[in-house]
Amino acid sequence: MRYFEDFRIGEVMETGPATVSEEEIITFARQFDPQPFHIDPAAARKSFYGGLIASGWHTAAIAMRLMVDGFIGNYASMGSPGLDELRWLKPVRPGDTLKVRSTCIGKKRSDKRPDMGACRFSTEVINQNEEVVLSMINIGLIRCRKDAI
Amino acid sequence: MRYFEDFRIGEVMETGPATVSEEEIITFARQFDPQPFHIDPAAARKSFYGGLIASGWHTAAIAMRLMVDGFIGNYASMGSPGLDELRWLKPVRPGDTLKVRSTCIGKKRSDKRPDMGACRFSTEVINQNEEVVLSMINIGLIRCRKDAI
Repeated sequence: MRYFEDFRIGEVMETGPATVSEEEIITFARQFDPQPFHIDPAAARKSFYGGLIASGWHTAAIAMRLMVDGFIGNYASMGSPGLDELRWLKPVRPGDTLKVRSTCIGKKRSDKRPDMGACRFSTEVINQNEEVVLSMINIGLIRCRKDAI
Repeated sequence: MRYFEDFRIGEVMETGPATVSEEEIITFARQFDPQPFHIDPAAARKSFYGGLIASGWHTAAIAMRLMVDGFIGNYASMGSPGLDELRWLKPVRPGDTLKVRSTCIGKKRSDKRPDMGACRFSTEVINQNEEVVLSMINIGLIRCRKDAI
């Protein structure tokens, strides 16, 4: 288990890959983002995007799962207060394979709650062509070691 | 259908409500955010949060669905380049009823692509106690009227 004290600014974590199918894209979007270019291949072909693309929220959710499996599952995680500057930079299309790279860019122990601290990460979701499809600055709340409190 | 020209800075849109069940919270989190406080009621009771809470990505996805049903479905929407300052301000718990309020706070026609413009919205997800559980500044790309191009 990794605690707040264990994070070093500049350290880079990378997840394993996940491939996104057309069925997954449509299933997610029918439930949460039923815009034509996410749920209807024929309408998507005629759209701005020239074909079906994943909801940006789906891409973010896939990234979260990769991060939980890859490293957050081993953090003394207390959740997140939010994120800054999320950008959907490239469409995610059926068959794309995504991985996540996350760099610790800042850390600060809580003044109010000395048993925890906040780490800031610069996170990128990268496709099989090494293109960044999503970038964001996300914040994680992480418990301190008990002997440090 | 609403086009870029139709948006006024200061206009406020509000969606209908949606109630979130424990089953929905666990189903989403098992797939996308399997941290104990999102998927395991017993572990969640012993956690920082004192009970099961929705993944923040689930709250955002529910908000997206409410917005597509409530108003984005009637926009000449071309997707979104991203968002700023997303904050998860309060936990969302089983049985909570959420709605979304979105205020247009800025608009700018694209220099590169005069057939579209970007609108900025200050968006809040509000629970049954009128508490803001999520806030964000989100950006929408919206097509211009054909006769304006």
